[in-house]
Amino acid sequence: MKFIAEIDVMPKKEILDPQGKAVTGSMKSLGLGTISQVRIGKHITLELEAANEAEAREQVDLACSKLLANLIMESYEFEVKAV
Amino acid sequence: MKFIAEIDVMPKKEILDPQGKAVTGSMKSLGLGTISQVRIGKHITLELEAANEAEAREQVDLACSKLLANLIMESYEFEVKAV
Repeated sequence: MKFIAEIDVMPKKEILDPQGKAVTGSMKSLGLGTISQVRIGKHITLELEAANEAEAREQVDLACSKLLANLIMESYEFEVKAV
Repeated sequence: MKFIAEIDVMPKKEILDPQGKAVTGSMKSLGLGTISQVRIGKHITLELEAANEAEAREQVDLACSKLLANLIMESYEFEVKAV
């Protein structure tokens, strides 16, 4: 079966996010001063082949923890859908 | 009212994503050869103040089109939730 995974990798709450801070500042110059707490991470989509959803989730979890996320600084969550 | 927005900014389908291609290649060395079509974009979360959900969506849309996404190469979608 073919699955599609949607993964979000975000800097952990207790880690400073300088990119997000810079963007928060820029919002003001755009007249969007009501926007705050911008945090920027990665959104990753991928396709995979697996026998069932449990196996697909296991593979995506492995991909996240081994390659896509740096677990010291980032956390991840994902959804897997059959297509 | 306070709202939280979750935004995904992704490279458009017809645009080559070299970072995603490199990661697809690395999956093989990890024993995850069943994974393909990796595409990598940005996931952005932010907080904002607005009178109602329609106004909040309008502000987030403006932030995306003016600052967060490069509409020539990227497309975006977002969800807004009251908190």
